Amino acid sequence: MSRKLRLMIPGPTPMPPQVAEAMARPMVGHRSKGFAEFTAKLHAKLQQVLQTKNEVLILTCSGTGGLEAAVANTVNPGDKVLALVAGKFGERFRDLARVFGAEVLELAFPWGMPVDLETVRAALKAHPDVKLVLATQNETSTGVLHDIRGLGELCRDHGAVLAVDAVSGLGGVDLPADAWGVDILVTATQKALMTPPGLAMISLSPKAWALVGECRSPRYYFSLEAAKKAHAKWNTAFTPAVSLFFALDAALDLILAEGLEAVFARHRLLGTAAREGVKALGLELLPPEEAASPLLTAVKGPEGVKVDDLRKLLLDKYGVLFAGGQSELKGKIFRIAHMGYVDRVDVITALGALEMALSELGCKVALGGGVAAAQKVFLGGVKQ
Amino acid sequence: MSRKLRLMIPGPTPMPPQVAEAMARPMVGHRSKGFAEFTAKLHAKLQQVLQTKNEVLILTCSGTGGLEAAVANTVNPGDKVLALVAGKFGERFRDLARVFGAEVLELAFPWGMPVDLETVRAALKAHPDVKLVLATQNETSTGVLHDIRGLGELCRDHGAVLAVDAVSGLGGVDLPADAWGVDILVTATQKALMTPPGLAMISLSPKAWALVGECRSPRYYFSLEAAKKAHAKWNTAFTPAVSLFFALDAALDLILAEGLEAVFARHRLLGTAAREGVKALGLELLPPEEAASPLLTAVKGPEGVKVDDLRKLLLDKYGVLFAGGQSELKGKIFRIAHMGYVDRVDVITALGALEMALSELGCKVALGGGVAAAQKVFLGGVKQ
Repeated sequence: MSRKLRLMIPGPTPMPPQVAEAMARPMVGHRSKGFAEFTAKLHAKLQQVLQTKNEVLILTCSGTGGLEAAVANTVNPGDKVLALVAGKFGERFRDLARVFGAEVLELAFPWGMPVDLETVRAALKAHPDVKLVLATQNETSTGVLHDIRGLGELCRDHGAVLAVDAVSGLGGVDLPADAWGVDILVTATQKALMTPPGLAMISLSPKAWALVGECRSPRYYFSLEAAKKAHAKWNTAFTPAVSLFFALDAALDLILAEGLEAVFARHRLLGTAAREGVKALGLELLPPEEAASPLLTAVKGPEGVKVDDLRKLLLDKYGVLFAGGQSELKGKIFRIAHMGYVDRVDVITALGALEMALSELGCKVALGGGVAAAQKVFLGGVKQ
Repeated sequence: MSRKLRLMIPGPTPMPPQVAEAMARPMVGHRSKGFAEFTAKLHAKLQQVLQTKNEVLILTCSGTGGLEAAVANTVNPGDKVLALVAGKFGERFRDLARVFGAEVLELAFPWGMPVDLETVRAALKAHPDVKLVLATQNETSTGVLHDIRGLGELCRDHGAVLAVDAVSGLGGVDLPADAWGVDILVTATQKALMTPPGLAMISLSPKAWALVGECRSPRYYFSLEAAKKAHAKWNTAFTPAVSLFFALDAALDLILAEGLEAVFARHRLLGTAAREGVKALGLELLPPEEAASPLLTAVKGPEGVKVDDLRKLLLDKYGVLFAGGQSELKGKIFRIAHMGYVDRVDVITALGALEMALSELGCKVALGGGVAAAQKVFLGGVKQ
């Protein structure tokens, strides 16, 4: 038979059938009254899911384009920017600031560890002229969830604008942007939001918009002033990816029908179960458990097994696709994503296949042991 | 019954069912071996349709993002750039060059008229330091097809790099990029290529790549060096809009199965029929007929009728959506697109509905007169 693919990478994530149906909908004119009415309703849903009263601007690009919009509209050459780097996506945000000429103050943390708030506090104290802080909510490369609430407080006290890369976390983990003082929130469709890649969303607080007004960096496609002007008419500055708007709308309907709190609780449960399962197989998690993301589980490769061999066997024989490590973690870890359109049985599937593949590669694993540990979480025997 | 929409705007254009089916395909990992193999095959098809041996890089953005990539990777502040402006999209390319600090020499032509080659020749002669020429192939705002072949010769003689916005024309009108000396070719999915919006394609000649190497303008998401590096592994620098890759592939299959020459001939035939039909109704075309695009027909609003009233009636009562005029042509023209997934009957539909709507708005039209004129073209009675 043809291979049945189980996509367990941190984006693109599987599409619910309702989203796939929306993708196939016929084209409409993006300047039509009907599309504007649709966009207005979509926007109300986005504000609910992004937990913000600020305008949510939609850009046709992937997450990195949204990060570029955050930087290109706020950073002038020579501005002092504090970049918090604890993985590949932290590096990306930092690199973007450098490209636009910022004087970047980098705080690097070991990959797999959370950003340390005391270090950030000290850096802000030592550099009162830091204007913008770049942070990652869910560092996809390490499976660490960083403390955005804590960073929000520090930035508020300092007066800096806080920009958060919430590309992979938003819609899976609680992030009350306005309440926590997130000034620039960037996310994208293809992770917890269960929609194919191609749209980024960005919202700015009034404090962040003030920077936009003073920004002289070149920008056109990613001009947030142009996006805001078009948004006032429920329009976009340039032709939007219409099909992805339809798909995003269908996905947001699913999220709002389930309820944000229920979605977050589901991801917490799946995260706990995945970690318990992995630990029961004698494998080691990359991050300390209290900093582990509920959306993906980063696992150190077992001794004597090449991670790439493990991933290849899982894919070729079982149709299960895990992500590998990136950059300095390449070949050292694998990552099991459980974000978006995922349920308990998906975690069982992942662990069951992992057990077989490990066994076939000569690891001593108790078959069914990881599965059982996860089952206990689902059946209520393990405190989350 | 619910409205049946006939989309006759110059993008997004209607999706063939094969493309809609591809849009609904399940997600796959964009870093997977399978997706790389798919991308390699897609690339071979793109080179055929773009008629170039150069690498065709795919960016997740709409056409304007592709134009920004062309400028951001080649223009240093102070560079002299010649912008040929005869409509809204010519203005956009010019504005992009200004945003990136170019010293822009603008040659403006009346909206509705083609770029005059002698004027361009004189400008290039007077400004030997022009490094880059920005041109539009099919000016969607006016329905004019500009002479890219002629511009290619002028730029070759002068030594300037020629960048062509072929967003709306490529795949509908012949543009042998390499043979005509197009150094930078930009196009997008949602016009003649019959795919929903969200991808831009760009290819550069070795002469254009030389500029990229010298370019210091800030760019990250649109970095062509990053795109090229990823492309060498059949990959993309950032997460691509996977569904749109599938859809584009399905659309290219349709174009190649029909044959490029046949596709161009079909559009020429439809263009001739649309113009004959419109003229038979006593309406005036905006461009001189020899410069009229085969992809869309721009028509001056008839005396005594508000163009917006006409468009509204056509949409509300007949489900037929024409485009209006943009910027200085707003309220003065309407535009009937016949690009992409369109056939003879679509032109008949457009004219038939137009006749009824004009009649209802008090115009004296011979019912069936426009339709008959188009039919004569299709039945071979009118020389194209």
